[in-house]
Amino acid sequence: MAQKFKVIFQPAGRRGEIEEGTTILKAAQQLGVDLEALCGDKKVCGKCKVRIEEGYFEKDNLESGMAHITPLEPTTDELKHIKPEDGPGIRLACSCEIHGDLKVFVPERSRAGKQVVRKAAKDIIIALDPAVKKYTLTLTPPTLHDMTTGDYERIAAAMEKDYGLKGLKFDYLTLRSTQDALREGEWTITVTVWMDKEIVKVEPGHVDVCYGLAVDVGTTTCVGYLCDLSTGKVINTESMMNPQVPYGEDVMSRITYAMTNPEGLKTMQDAIITGLNEIIDKVVSEVRKDGANPGYSIDDLTIVFNTAMHHIFLGMNPTYIGRSPFIPAVQQSLDIKARDLGLRINPGSYIHVLPIEAGFVGADNVGVLIAQEPYNQDENVLIIDIGTNGELLLGNKNRVCSTSCATGPAFEGAQIKFGMRAAPGAIEKVKIDYETKEPKYKVIGKADWHTHIEGKINAKGICGSAIIDVIAEMCKAGIIDKTGKFVMDIGTNRVRKDAEGKPEYVLAWAEETSINADITVTQGDVRALQLAKGALYCGAKLMMKKMGIEKLDRVELAGAFGSHIDREASLTLGMFPDVPIDKVVVVGNAAGDGARMALLNKGKRIEADERARWVEFVEIATDPTFEKEFMQAMHIPHMKDKYPNLKALLEEQKAPMAANIKG
Amino acid sequence: MAQKFKVIFQPAGRRGEIEEGTTILKAAQQLGVDLEALCGDKKVCGKCKVRIEEGYFEKDNLESGMAHITPLEPTTDELKHIKPEDGPGIRLACSCEIHGDLKVFVPERSRAGKQVVRKAAKDIIIALDPAVKKYTLTLTPPTLHDMTTGDYERIAAAMEKDYGLKGLKFDYLTLRSTQDALREGEWTITVTVWMDKEIVKVEPGHVDVCYGLAVDVGTTTCVGYLCDLSTGKVINTESMMNPQVPYGEDVMSRITYAMTNPEGLKTMQDAIITGLNEIIDKVVSEVRKDGANPGYSIDDLTIVFNTAMHHIFLGMNPTYIGRSPFIPAVQQSLDIKARDLGLRINPGSYIHVLPIEAGFVGADNVGVLIAQEPYNQDENVLIIDIGTNGELLLGNKNRVCSTSCATGPAFEGAQIKFGMRAAPGAIEKVKIDYETKEPKYKVIGKADWHTHIEGKINAKGICGSAIIDVIAEMCKAGIIDKTGKFVMDIGTNRVRKDAEGKPEYVLAWAEETSINADITVTQGDVRALQLAKGALYCGAKLMMKKMGIEKLDRVELAGAFGSHIDREASLTLGMFPDVPIDKVVVVGNAAGDGARMALLNKGKRIEADERARWVEFVEIATDPTFEKEFMQAMHIPHMKDKYPNLKALLEEQKAPMAANIKG
Repeated sequence: MAQKFKVIFQPAGRRGEIEEGTTILKAAQQLGVDLEALCGDKKVCGKCKVRIEEGYFEKDNLESGMAHITPLEPTTDELKHIKPEDGPGIRLACSCEIHGDLKVFVPERSRAGKQVVRKAAKDIIIALDPAVKKYTLTLTPPTLHDMTTGDYERIAAAMEKDYGLKGLKFDYLTLRSTQDALREGEWTITVTVWMDKEIVKVEPGHVDVCYGLAVDVGTTTCVGYLCDLSTGKVINTESMMNPQVPYGEDVMSRITYAMTNPEGLKTMQDAIITGLNEIIDKVVSEVRKDGANPGYSIDDLTIVFNTAMHHIFLGMNPTYIGRSPFIPAVQQSLDIKARDLGLRINPGSYIHVLPIEAGFVGADNVGVLIAQEPYNQDENVLIIDIGTNGELLLGNKNRVCSTSCATGPAFEGAQIKFGMRAAPGAIEKVKIDYETKEPKYKVIGKADWHTHIEGKINAKGICGSAIIDVIAEMCKAGIIDKTGKFVMDIGTNRVRKDAEGKPEYVLAWAEETSINADITVTQGDVRALQLAKGALYCGAKLMMKKMGIEKLDRVELAGAFGSHIDREASLTLGMFPDVPIDKVVVVGNAAGDGARMALLNKGKRIEADERARWVEFVEIATDPTFEKEFMQAMHIPHMKDKYPNLKALLEEQKAPMAANIKG
Repeated sequence: MAQKFKVIFQPAGRRGEIEEGTTILKAAQQLGVDLEALCGDKKVCGKCKVRIEEGYFEKDNLESGMAHITPLEPTTDELKHIKPEDGPGIRLACSCEIHGDLKVFVPERSRAGKQVVRKAAKDIIIALDPAVKKYTLTLTPPTLHDMTTGDYERIAAAMEKDYGLKGLKFDYLTLRSTQDALREGEWTITVTVWMDKEIVKVEPGHVDVCYGLAVDVGTTTCVGYLCDLSTGKVINTESMMNPQVPYGEDVMSRITYAMTNPEGLKTMQDAIITGLNEIIDKVVSEVRKDGANPGYSIDDLTIVFNTAMHHIFLGMNPTYIGRSPFIPAVQQSLDIKARDLGLRINPGSYIHVLPIEAGFVGADNVGVLIAQEPYNQDENVLIIDIGTNGELLLGNKNRVCSTSCATGPAFEGAQIKFGMRAAPGAIEKVKIDYETKEPKYKVIGKADWHTHIEGKINAKGICGSAIIDVIAEMCKAGIIDKTGKFVMDIGTNRVRKDAEGKPEYVLAWAEETSINADITVTQGDVRALQLAKGALYCGAKLMMKKMGIEKLDRVELAGAFGSHIDREASLTLGMFPDVPIDKVVVVGNAAGDGARMALLNKGKRIEADERARWVEFVEIATDPTFEKEFMQAMHIPHMKDKYPNLKALLEEQKAPMAANIKG
């Protein structure tokens, strides 16, 4: 039998054991990785470009003189397709055989299915008062009789006279282009003013369009919402995998990467800046077709992220937030010139970085805070922001506490055997018949459940929200018990043991898939989910204890799953302490909502700074009962027994927002 | 007879007709150009590197298929010495023969004599209150009990508590290095604060040294004064030719260069930034030997220049100040991050650009204004700032007017046949015997007058201040008449006609020189000086008329000549309207003094902005009597007749400051 090697595909996080000599393309297909191959392995289309991530993986084979891939250098056939701008390490997946452990990155362009935006923007209600506004001026052309007034002074005087804005400063780069703009516009110009303080852009003639971008950088996913600052409407949304994923799948491993590689911080900062510039270019160029630098029409940008992503984005050493006493470089909000960060929006504009709460509770949680405003509520509300890290807010108008739990990326489908991102082919909803243990599932890109579809279903894997679904259903159907252990011999061939003797449940048979393998849920997957949900549950429980709260009035679920999390499943699994199901509200990407609110209303920026300081950070890991609580929280409580009328309840209620899936 | 070609050497401005086939090195020697040639033409030392400035000169020969130089490409012998970092167009002067009109640039490194600083700093009396100050803080190291305070917040709180500085902002780049500085200094740091508003540097431990640089960018010469901001003392001075000279010798030709070359503005901006970075590196590295980036120890920089140099330095289109109605982009002072300009001082620090008065009266004149403070005087004072442009201030505490006159570069020794910069070998003082017409002269680098020196004198040319000397002396000796025309046949072989039949006066015979040619003063030189001094005189006269001032109480001479201008000669030539000689004061580089004052006292910055607006700009070229006045002003008034006791007067008085020549 051929030797097998560990292969991990990034950014999907899909991994598996692959037989020696298999091509990378075949391995991708076996593991259900989304990798384009138009020519179907004929080595002519050049679409299956991947980057071999050497140096971030065990090198034992290389050290023993054996190459991980063959051929080691690109062939002439490959070189026909590989261009210098592709960067180093790029190969054609169809042309490289696996001969050692490998980590492979699939660039955005090589992915066949466009990711489904799981962080779609919902409508938010907020008074429009953006930090950046446009004013049109018509000046009297200068003559030899008033030649002692410069263009700057002429504009400043008109802004005071026409709009009451006194003592405006001029951004240096903006000032450089002002003379030409004035003359091109024949002394009519449109002036963009930041915070009533500084002129950050001067355009010839009358200009109406004023764009702002709200950005949410998650550990795994980044999303940008392009807003029209004159209407407040979201006019386009773009998302992508966080390009820092190759340097570490979670926050701690990226901090470690920065600590152990001399250029690590700069590499990761460059990666996220480059990635955000791609979002900027795409999000505008789909709306405006008229410029070589489409991003320059964006006049303002707000951004949220967790503390580690915040530090790396700003080029600040994340070492100190990774070790006790976990001190961040800065907590308050920052306004940084776009050009200082290399972000390709209007170079005179500022990037508004929302404040962070504490070492582990970042600007993204401040976004959730100002979007959900628990400080304006009478009831005790628990807000769970579920991403690669889980962040919790608990309290009411009198007091709000926050904490952070290391849930790991399981909720986002990573480190799950057949986990994948929300893209066409991903199983997104699951039901299991409690008697027969037969599943029904729905695949993204298909309108109906699989049992009603004729022809091939082509399932590829399971997306994050469906992991919760399927494990909750397995629990209800008695396939796993409350400790998460598989119950064997229950009269179905779907529950079986894998090659290593570990139990698994077959969700889709090979012939229903596009990967020619059974899609299964393993004991490992169940354990990963239990750890994740246990961390959340335990965090909430300990916060309640510290605050003396016996019972929650409401739970709000925010985060990467956005509008897709199944409330019943989350109750079934026990992701958080008891609360009536009609008091569980799915609020979507609240962090992104907060970033949008700060973009549309400058008062929200002040509120963010004030409330970020007002919220009390609670350290739960140091609680003496932490370990015991955590162990208990891993159990699955079988909520079905508690809520016999769950289904009826659910049907009475409509989801608070429509699913907003972007094709 | 061999054909001759026009050759111009930059930045000295020396030019002449050179026989076909002469090497560039020989041509340089014939024209007295300061060009190093250690091996004496043996083609081995590689010191005589020059840049052929193609593209900025007539190309007729090249178009006809003939090369201006032979060989057209560097020989292998040359290539041994030419390195990639020398840049394009570099050749060895000893190895290239002239076969067409040429413009040649002599890089600083290829010049044998170090320029004498003619803009040496004089002592100025000013209260020390710099815009940038350093504060040392010792913080309590954070523990798990105060982990919700970031480094920024910790420092800001300490600055408020220890020094009463509230609400300090943090420069973004500075913030990036703060965490490491805190830990490296074991929680003792030194914080540099700009204008009590913003932290622009954080250094570990206790730091005393705080440097600032005052910069004066002249059309022809740039100088930087390194000041210790804790004592106010000038601790080092560096000067260089303005590296923009190859793109135009005067302001208008540089504006034209920017208008006619798509990359012209950028080229000239890059040139001055690169040049100033050289000054920054040199001026600090002579004082501190401890850093890879010596400039980073400079925490503040003030800069003055004329309006065209101001715009080009800032990358602003100078087109509009070059044509009616001559509107500048901005008049008020600017504070621009060093990194936005690419100046290699502390990147978080600001460059303070002094305000300008009007289209033609620049920040350099504002420097003169705040240094000389005519607005605090009872008397009517005329301040003449003599550089490539002449700028005038006239008035008293009630009213001060300003104007600008196009004097051309004659006062600086350019466009004068044997004119050269103030470097070893330059004639700097001249006396002529009124009977015999025999001259005495003093050469820079020699302690005594030439008549008292044994051995070779090695004169090379005439520096700017000596041009005024020699022409005033020629006038007094009756060699030229009051219209500037040579008087022939006065019984000396020193007055003769050149090859073209034009009269000239031999100041030094070939055997006294290092260039093996007679150093002469030509009719053209006299005319150039008459035009220059006529422009000044006429400007002053018209300002007096406009202000209703009949008589001046005092004249202050400022500018490039610094401490070297001869007051008697300037009176003899009639550079300005009548005033008693004891009321003529030489004030040195007042523009640079103003830049230093703004560096040492932030109140002076406010004063500069206020007074720049308060001064009235007078346009003299549009005065109907301008042409008539200008023609009259060209005449030389023979002041000797008016002041028979001139010499006695001069001896009674000591120069207001000691000559401060740096070897």
